[in-house]
Amino acid sequence: MLHRAIGIFDSGVGGLTVYKEIMRLLPEEDLLYLGDTARVPYGTKSAEIVKQYALEAGSFLVDQGVKLLVVACNTASAVALPALREKFQLPVIGVIEPGARRAACSRTGRIGVIGTEATIASGRYKEAITALLPAAEVFSLACPLLVPLAEEGWTENQVAQLAVREYLAPLKLNNIDTLVLGCTHYPLLRNVLQQELGAGVTLVDSAEETAATVAELFRQQGLARPQSGGRRAYYVTDVPTRFVRVGQGFLGHELSHVQQVRVGP
Amino acid sequence: MLHRAIGIFDSGVGGLTVYKEIMRLLPEEDLLYLGDTARVPYGTKSAEIVKQYALEAGSFLVDQGVKLLVVACNTASAVALPALREKFQLPVIGVIEPGARRAACSRTGRIGVIGTEATIASGRYKEAITALLPAAEVFSLACPLLVPLAEEGWTENQVAQLAVREYLAPLKLNNIDTLVLGCTHYPLLRNVLQQELGAGVTLVDSAEETAATVAELFRQQGLARPQSGGRRAYYVTDVPTRFVRVGQGFLGHELSHVQQVRVGP
Repeated sequence: MLHRAIGIFDSGVGGLTVYKEIMRLLPEEDLLYLGDTARVPYGTKSAEIVKQYALEAGSFLVDQGVKLLVVACNTASAVALPALREKFQLPVIGVIEPGARRAACSRTGRIGVIGTEATIASGRYKEAITALLPAAEVFSLACPLLVPLAEEGWTENQVAQLAVREYLAPLKLNNIDTLVLGCTHYPLLRNVLQQELGAGVTLVDSAEETAATVAELFRQQGLARPQSGGRRAYYVTDVPTRFVRVGQGFLGHELSHVQQVRVGP
Repeated sequence: MLHRAIGIFDSGVGGLTVYKEIMRLLPEEDLLYLGDTARVPYGTKSAEIVKQYALEAGSFLVDQGVKLLVVACNTASAVALPALREKFQLPVIGVIEPGARRAACSRTGRIGVIGTEATIASGRYKEAITALLPAAEVFSLACPLLVPLAEEGWTENQVAQLAVREYLAPLKLNNIDTLVLGCTHYPLLRNVLQQELGAGVTLVDSAEETAATVAELFRQQGLARPQSGGRRAYYVTDVPTRFVRVGQGFLGHELSHVQQVRVGP
């Protein structure tokens, strides 16, 4: 059991930011990554459809015999976590709880959350943060353009700066001291976001928080591999070309061992 | 047979620009529109996957008993037209041939084409234009960010202007006299594109050209309805909420009679 891999899935390349952090904190673990690239993105789709896709993606990884499932996608975590936990007999970790825990450390309780349309519409961050910090005021905002900006590699140019300025204007007026990057793509835009908000605002990166949560769970429950493994495999549902090209920017190095698979009906 | 509807499909809302032009030119025809919103977009996916989705979407409309199939999506037209024509025993019109015919009227033969990654990678516009105008020099460019910009309604603001400037810079250096808007979303950005290129560059709108082609085919083959119809129905593969909201901007008026259906496996 302990020798089994950690399974991580996302709609596409975004979850690689979570994957990368898990790899950094738990380098001896085997990791399997699934990007549902034939149906990407999840963030503009309905809760019903995302739930169906997440269950199908999760099933694929569970069938590979993983010991833990990480939902490395904010949208899927927002709408499908209960269904995934009900269906599978293993620990399922999403990216929202870890980010919300860090956000609840806000000094002023004025917290911004940015994410996809589906994540924001779910209200899950607001719910998770106020459960921990009832006095919190949570200001949520969908920023649909930031995902394609990150995938285009336009993370530092003037278009990115201007788009971020346009989106963040209402959050700046709300005088937040913490901003949750509620989408796995957004860490790539970290510099531009920080620059726009100023150094006084803490950015919460759900990739970092989720990896820390996984590492803590492994420590507590003794789930770590007894001997060093370190096998990596990537599965995608469309042909790998674009995943390999765009994913490189997310991972910081070349991607190999990428294999096309079929999930779902 | 003549009483049957025209079937029009796209991955999502973009094809509504084509639908709108067909409605304008042939107001007496019944129109069925399918947006494959559970799997949108097609433009970042592989030719294999897009072909599969296009055949499934086309099958749904053919099963409704349409007399003509319009592929109101440049990506699907680029990679799936032969497969669609082989599978179905009715006329299938794509958006690429009509746009290429108009582009081939270029005075200087220096023609730019912008589109999704998949459309540009297919090379179909270049092929279609040079078949008509062998001396043409075709400069093709993928502009992935323009689709989400149009869907966000950011079609005239500074972010749109700057993104268009960034993308078009190489085409301006190529001194084109014609630009093909090779994606059904792009007509929404028409003003910004024209402003950036100047009045000397002709913009080819594949929605207008395709509707004109359909009208001409109807005239030639006597396919028009004998009595006035005008029934409209919209089908989508995800829940209709986002389609109704975003589609309004594409159609210019409210959308009703939108129904969720299942296509494919």
